[in-house]
Amino acid sequence: MTWSPDGMPLYALVMAGGAGTRFWPLSRRSRPKQMLPFAQGRSLLAATVERLAPLVSPERTLVATSAEVANAVRAELPQLPGRNVLAEPAGRDTAACVGWAAWRVARSKPEAVMIVLPADHLIPDGPALRSALASAAATAAARGGLVTLALRPARAETGFGYLELGEVVGAAAGRPVHVVKRFVEKPSRERAEEFVAAGNYSWNSGMFAWTVEAIQGAIREHLPELAVGLDELMTAADSLGEEEALRRQYASLPKVSVDFGVMEKAKTVWAVGVDFTWSDVGSWAGLAGALPLQDAGVTMGDVVALDSEGSVLVSDGPLVAVVGVRDLVVVATRDAVLVVPKDQAQRVKELVEKLREAGRDDLL
Amino acid sequence: MTWSPDGMPLYALVMAGGAGTRFWPLSRRSRPKQMLPFAQGRSLLAATVERLAPLVSPERTLVATSAEVANAVRAELPQLPGRNVLAEPAGRDTAACVGWAAWRVARSKPEAVMIVLPADHLIPDGPALRSALASAAATAAARGGLVTLALRPARAETGFGYLELGEVVGAAAGRPVHVVKRFVEKPSRERAEEFVAAGNYSWNSGMFAWTVEAIQGAIREHLPELAVGLDELMTAADSLGEEEALRRQYASLPKVSVDFGVMEKAKTVWAVGVDFTWSDVGSWAGLAGALPLQDAGVTMGDVVALDSEGSVLVSDGPLVAVVGVRDLVVVATRDAVLVVPKDQAQRVKELVEKLREAGRDDLL
Repeated sequence: MTWSPDGMPLYALVMAGGAGTRFWPLSRRSRPKQMLPFAQGRSLLAATVERLAPLVSPERTLVATSAEVANAVRAELPQLPGRNVLAEPAGRDTAACVGWAAWRVARSKPEAVMIVLPADHLIPDGPALRSALASAAATAAARGGLVTLALRPARAETGFGYLELGEVVGAAAGRPVHVVKRFVEKPSRERAEEFVAAGNYSWNSGMFAWTVEAIQGAIREHLPELAVGLDELMTAADSLGEEEALRRQYASLPKVSVDFGVMEKAKTVWAVGVDFTWSDVGSWAGLAGALPLQDAGVTMGDVVALDSEGSVLVSDGPLVAVVGVRDLVVVATRDAVLVVPKDQAQRVKELVEKLREAGRDDLL
Repeated sequence: MTWSPDGMPLYALVMAGGAGTRFWPLSRRSRPKQMLPFAQGRSLLAATVERLAPLVSPERTLVATSAEVANAVRAELPQLPGRNVLAEPAGRDTAACVGWAAWRVARSKPEAVMIVLPADHLIPDGPALRSALASAAATAAARGGLVTLALRPARAETGFGYLELGEVVGAAAGRPVHVVKRFVEKPSRERAEEFVAAGNYSWNSGMFAWTVEAIQGAIREHLPELAVGLDELMTAADSLGEEEALRRQYASLPKVSVDFGVMEKAKTVWAVGVDFTWSDVGSWAGLAGALPLQDAGVTMGDVVALDSEGSVLVSDGPLVAVVGVRDLVVVATRDAVLVVPKDQAQRVKELVEKLREAGRDDLL
């Protein structure tokens, strides 16, 4: 089948619920990772929505985020109708917000196709992403099932989950459509290398496409308690308004990820094989490619470096001045400064935990 | 002779003129090194004046500093009469301010004995310092010449000048009084080791004692142009007031150090041999002993460190949070952050120069 997004009610859900302590002190409760200006000075979230726009209009783009940052998200995305920002009063993982979006869209467009993607990834090639998402949406529309984007592994990464791909059952705009045989948790180094060598494994990108009908059906089948909760939520919203209904009921929805609660349990999941440059921007050390490259490494903001290299130097206010540093992360904000060797950048979490224990909530 | 400070008109001049870029970003034009809180939370300057107080009263303690920071110095030393802070409208090195102080004291107390010492050194043992200064003052009063404190070298330091000591000509409160044979500039490592091994070399502490009569005579003899300038300055001060006289004439006084312009040229200089713990706090790396010692190294202000050691971690506002750093200097203020390996701490000067060239005067 040939498929054009122009003729179809295509919606997108951008999942922007992450707290993200890995980018402390730049990221805070009030300014999670997806709000950080890592996309050529714009936030990852704004860049994600703008990348989508030629495929999915702002009127059909929903963003799910925590109530705490919902207004900041609305300010970041002035092109979106305010009610398209779904404000979660409590974190209930991804199945709940995917369900909420699907139930909401189903009311006005039960025949809609939905794309779901994270707000905090970096994908420089917008046309490649849109073409891949269009293929996945076409596959979802044609086959009526759940579709995931299977990213060709660029390396034996141990930080991501993998998909084991089965037989090719068709093609979408030249891309192979596979049956997914198995979802694999983050592997060991050895297994990751085996996966890459084997050729029939891909990275689990966290990007999906499905018809609203298919995801509603899958939630009713595999997470019936969530389905009932969402039915009740919509009914309550009719009488109380959505905000009050959410305030009363959202926190009691089951807390489970869409991967674990739906995708891994579904009888059939299709995978569209895609291949583009993609980064989940997982830590300060992983910012190469996201920030401008200087002699000293990657830098952002007001930075002066002498005889330094391989470093990540970020200022959000104070001048960051370094001499003779190697492979170091330095991040300075008005109220906190982080210094950590690049190969220990993931230990920022320990620092944040220590600050939390010490009651330094003003800095988190 | 036995000598008691109680019976003598003993004055002190504390030289607080240094700009001190080595402690950037904590030190600024408006807050030079001697104003930094490196003496158990108090400034080096305040600690210096307080250490002196049992020997020289605040009424007889003069502080020479730049006009730019004179009011800050007065605020730091509320116990001093305001006019005891000599505000230099231009930096003319130490001979000019020593001369100004001597000329001024000579008017009211021509028979006075003067102690001269820097404002930015760290000397934990106050009684030992006062006893040594009393010995030097007694020697100056008894012999009528120029006296310097000869510090027993604690190590083969290449960052200080040395004194070659000649014969012992007497004693003061049990301390040997030597003739100074020679002033030696900062030596190489090899020569410094020879000096320490030889036993008749000492560190040039930059602390002096002399009668006002002796220093005036030495300036008239070796820096006659300065003597004439100081005579004219005092005359002008009588008619115009001291501030206006300084404004008109101070900048034209010869610019030379008291070491080079007077001490090295004088026919006879006495050295009183002293031995106490002393630090010129020359750089961030040299702060051990001045700041509280923690597992991570020396720290000041709001610092959280995980698995770090041998470092100098200083906060003047923002939290400084480090993980896994070794032998690193991190200094954070509200508008600038410095990161440099401890063994390159002296390169802060290069950074400051670069900022000056870039017109970043707001940060200097």
